[in-house]
Amino acid sequence: MSQSELETLRGRVDELNSEILKLINERAVVVQEIGRVKEKSGVNRYDPLRERTMLDLLKESNHGPLPQSTVEHIFKEIFKTALELQVDDQKKALLV
Amino acid sequence: MSQSELETLRGRVDELNSEILKLINERAVVVQEIGRVKEKSGVNRYDPLRERTMLDLLKESNHGPLPQSTVEHIFKEIFKTALELQVDDQKKALLV
Repeated sequence: MSQSELETLRGRVDELNSEILKLINERAVVVQEIGRVKEKSGVNRYDPLRERTMLDLLKESNHGPLPQSTVEHIFKEIFKTALELQVDDQKKALLV
Repeated sequence: MSQSELETLRGRVDELNSEILKLINERAVVVQEIGRVKEKSGVNRYDPLRERTMLDLLKESNHGPLPQSTVEHIFKEIFKTALELQVDDQKKALLV
């Protein structure tokens, strides 16, 4: 094994991890904003149809190597997380 | 609620979903390549220390809004996925 080859590949993985984290956080900020817009109009935050639409779009644009089932699994985790942040927001608002 | 405001925000979420998916797939390709490099030298693929280092790096660079526990949870899912793809690769190699 070329040790330097392995180090180069690992460096690339670290860069990608960092970019993915940045985007997931950015996504959470936008979803929090959506929560606030919905809050103002008394619309229910959780929208299973919207979640389905997002998953369908993702699976259409997935060219691998991740299998569709994995894409669905990872993104459901990401969706759940963002919803939890919205709920935290709501609780804070109630305490003000 | 401004319907167009909601649509704009949702459009941004779709863009971010798509970018995140692209990067997670790109990460999987690099991890598959790491698996092949390790395979050639008979090194064990799963390296819990490396996984710990990646998680520490991610948590250091996480400025939220995602809490650290969520970052750890989502990335463990991403790591697991990439490892499963490596195992698939190995099985295919054995069948050749």
